[in-house]
Amino acid sequence: MRKVYFKSELGLNIDVSKVYDKKISSLPSGLKNSSRFVKNANSILNDPGIDIVVELIGGIKDARLYIKNALKNGKHVVTANKALLAQDLGLFNVARKNKRIIKFEASVGGSIPIIQAIQKSFVADDIISLYGIVNGTSNYILSHMQQHGCSFKDALKEAQQKGYAEKNPRLDIEGIDSLHKLTILANLCFGTRLKHNNIYCEGISCIQYSDIQYADELGYRVKLLAIAKKIASRLELRVHPTLVREDHLLSSVRGIYNAIYIESTLAGKTLLFGKGAGGTPAGDAVVSDIIDIACSVKNSGMDIEDEAMLKKKVNLKLKNVKDISTRYYIRFMAIDKPGVLAKISDILGKCNISISSVTQKERKKTKIVPIVMITHEAGELNLQNAIGKIKKLNIIKNNPVVMRIENWGEE
Amino acid sequence: MRKVYFKSELGLNIDVSKVYDKKISSLPSGLKNSSRFVKNANSILNDPGIDIVVELIGGIKDARLYIKNALKNGKHVVTANKALLAQDLGLFNVARKNKRIIKFEASVGGSIPIIQAIQKSFVADDIISLYGIVNGTSNYILSHMQQHGCSFKDALKEAQQKGYAEKNPRLDIEGIDSLHKLTILANLCFGTRLKHNNIYCEGISCIQYSDIQYADELGYRVKLLAIAKKIASRLELRVHPTLVREDHLLSSVRGIYNAIYIESTLAGKTLLFGKGAGGTPAGDAVVSDIIDIACSVKNSGMDIEDEAMLKKKVNLKLKNVKDISTRYYIRFMAIDKPGVLAKISDILGKCNISISSVTQKERKKTKIVPIVMITHEAGELNLQNAIGKIKKLNIIKNNPVVMRIENWGEE
Repeated sequence: MRKVYFKSELGLNIDVSKVYDKKISSLPSGLKNSSRFVKNANSILNDPGIDIVVELIGGIKDARLYIKNALKNGKHVVTANKALLAQDLGLFNVARKNKRIIKFEASVGGSIPIIQAIQKSFVADDIISLYGIVNGTSNYILSHMQQHGCSFKDALKEAQQKGYAEKNPRLDIEGIDSLHKLTILANLCFGTRLKHNNIYCEGISCIQYSDIQYADELGYRVKLLAIAKKIASRLELRVHPTLVREDHLLSSVRGIYNAIYIESTLAGKTLLFGKGAGGTPAGDAVVSDIIDIACSVKNSGMDIEDEAMLKKKVNLKLKNVKDISTRYYIRFMAIDKPGVLAKISDILGKCNISISSVTQKERKKTKIVPIVMITHEAGELNLQNAIGKIKKLNIIKNNPVVMRIENWGEE
Repeated sequence: MRKVYFKSELGLNIDVSKVYDKKISSLPSGLKNSSRFVKNANSILNDPGIDIVVELIGGIKDARLYIKNALKNGKHVVTANKALLAQDLGLFNVARKNKRIIKFEASVGGSIPIIQAIQKSFVADDIISLYGIVNGTSNYILSHMQQHGCSFKDALKEAQQKGYAEKNPRLDIEGIDSLHKLTILANLCFGTRLKHNNIYCEGISCIQYSDIQYADELGYRVKLLAIAKKIASRLELRVHPTLVREDHLLSSVRGIYNAIYIESTLAGKTLLFGKGAGGTPAGDAVVSDIIDIACSVKNSGMDIEDEAMLKKKVNLKLKNVKDISTRYYIRFMAIDKPGVLAKISDILGKCNISISSVTQKERKKTKIVPIVMITHEAGELNLQNAIGKIKKLNIIKNNPVVMRIENWGEE
């Protein structure tokens, strides 16, 4: 489509010479019947006329094999495969050995140029922390619940009808997609070689509209955040629903939009915002990766020593989530009778958790009332201890809902 | 400082070999007495051992000469000189002819990687419009007025005390700095070769706290915006104080922070936010430019054909500000007597301007009352006509304050 433009503007001859897809049936007929369509991936991987292979099939096993073979056969690779990159960093070594580049801008944040920003703009800076809304589906659901006062279930349904959530939405709503993206971002920012398996992850499926409402009354928005913080020689990584002050930039990120907020030594605070999902933004990112490689190849030839793909290995120990400390939002559902609040507060106090605010809501129809608490900064282990004990009280119904709060200083 | 890091991580030997400054007296003594300090710029420009020249002296004449000579002598150039780039695009031709690169990330948005984003990430996309808060001083003043309910004068004083405004703040508060940056951004986005002289520009010095207050009551924030819109084959460029809905991302950009909001065909909406001014963010951007050039040189040698620095020339006619149409905020100061509103409305109606909302404020101490109006979309020429006529009414005191409103659809 923009072939002529790339030729005239950048002097690049870019041609989509071959296309392969496992599921031929799902392809548009124009493509299926095109002479460019091939029935075997090797026809691409072994073709000496091909310089760049774009991997968009997803999944782990085949994708890994194709990328490895492409690199070994002297091709540069563009991929959007966050699940693969979140667990196999060995591919970058294969790339380096073969003097080829892997580019993966579309793997995180759709059209947001976050990978490029971290690799290039922050090269002289030290990133201290990163907070990302990196899953459009979850953000759409949370925004929809807030705007329309509806349940999680109804918001999910709406998201599915609009094509913003898959039929099986598990990866998105349980935070796993965010976890994959956090792993990639953290490895880029901090030079670690972490895999996603050991990182704390919690989704949004247990959040009720009432939680969003109570948070709102307290001046907060609920967002599924991917958080990375470097504290001394330890790295704190976690994905979970988080209360963010309503006047913070991340609170203004609504619907399917994504944003990544970075704190660093030199630049201070930086935020990149954009469309996180969908074929067009991702396609846009893939094409800009292709163009970037093509420009490099034009100037340097195929052999490119791009050491900046991944920083040299740094050993940072992952902090166990039990060791973090933060403020908490807690909602208990309790039987409405005298002494309830005293019992809860007593346990919290004994576990060294100090309460910053408490609201007991009136409910006429039932005898179960919600008690909403905001704590001062407290240790996660103490908090879990306390919740475990409070849960066992016979005045408490259902599981308490716990969300962590992020506070940033005013600008 | 990070020399070791650049060497070990990227294989780059980066050395600040010579430093020149016109005002030797203002330099820190460590640098002044260093053997690297030279008394003549030519000692840098003619040194065959130097690969990259960084121009940070500002101003037009000398800077232009130094950059030209550096390029002609085979050096790449990094500059933060927005005033120069906003009026001399010929430098890019000199660069191309000599197969050298000019990089200028620090010229717009401090540490925000906006130049890189436009040149690389949007390469496959079509930018439709751009809205920038690109002057930290003005944004600080407007934010401070809003937060502390103070006058423009007091907010400026505060900004000067904090080092956020210069002793002579004209370039910042009259929008000229924003105009320079808008010119650079527009030329990058749209392939035009415009100079800043013909672009409409209005500063913030006539805004009173009451305007910010009234805007607030109506659900808006006042921001000094640099606006670029491509409509068919015409380009609308302007810098002026603008009313932005309070729930828009740009409204959350407070203090000395900058942000650039872009609408494009593929990516939809993108926003980049960060620290727009100050030595550290600008220095950060300069170093990332140096590293980027050094990486290219390492792979390709000194000769680099980087056609993407500036798009091929596109002819887009600049729209005269008189031809734009938008919604307006207008504040009149009128003598409080019967029939005033009727007279104003009559003139507006005859000029084809339709009123969306009107508030007349009560004032006890004086007989002059503010009348605040929001219009529906109206032509600028009609508006100026109407204002001209209304100003002449003997019931009107002072000059009316007019601000344009930008409305974006909900996400």
